Amino acid sequence: MQFADAKLSRSSLLLALRRYGTAVKNMEQTVLLPSLLRDVPYDDGSDCEGADNSMDLYEYYLLLKAIKNTAESGLIPHDDAKATSHAALHKGLEPLLEAEPEELFHFHLRGLYTVMATLTKKSQNLTEKYLDIIGISR
Amino acid sequence: MQFADAKLSRSSLLLALRRYGTAVKNMEQTVLLPSLLRDVPYDDGSDCEGADNSMDLYEYYLLLKAIKNTAESGLIPHDDAKATSHAALHKGLEPLLEAEPEELFHFHLRGLYTVMATLTKKSQNLTEKYLDIIGISR
Repeated sequence: MQFADAKLSRSSLLLALRRYGTAVKNMEQTVLLPSLLRDVPYDDGSDCEGADNSMDLYEYYLLLKAIKNTAESGLIPHDDAKATSHAALHKGLEPLLEAEPEELFHFHLRGLYTVMATLTKKSQNLTEKYLDIIGISR
Repeated sequence: MQFADAKLSRSSLLLALRRYGTAVKNMEQTVLLPSLLRDVPYDDGSDCEGADNSMDLYEYYLLLKAIKNTAESGLIPHDDAKATSHAALHKGLEPLLEAEPEELFHFHLRGLYTVMATLTKKSQNLTEKYLDIIGISR
């Protein structure tokens, strides 16, 4: 998303979005040969709750880049087949429909902030993993 | 939220936030005597699913203004007692915890967009209701 710098110092969601953009940019600049990530199992060192283990690191690299583009454009993506078929998320939607809009606003604002922080960490982990693969450790 | 105008034409979330800001600004400029909204039951003409009927229009007016401030600052509000005690939302959180972050990102981005559109409509309805009360209809 494009935004003026003036209010950034006190704008947590905007800061979270900018931090994610920086992490992905750093990842793109570091991963000069993305093909080296092919067939490397996705494992970000976290407790992997809900991680999609069918994805390799190369696919995850492309996904993190795609999310950055969406975040920067601010465009709302269409429902894709995967998102709508995810049982857990789908199950989560029903009680939310009954919530009041002012509560939903806070819920989604906080949710977006939290998930940006998680994705930032994942971009950083992927960058570190690439450095491990090419034999450079920081 | 502060943002450059350059990308606004194709940025739906930013447009939704701006539209809400405009609707609330218009509401503030129209409602010169907010106290006239006291004890007027909250009824926005919709099907009122999940509407908090214990609130009067004055309280709702203050709430819509507060949400505008939060949206413009981008600051993440702390959990307040009401939000955390809301059974439906709380129930909705558990399945979401199991979702993957990239899905959560799309979920919250889309959710924030939708709720901004709903709140914009509610601000416009409140403005119309005030005009009805003071005997001016447009």
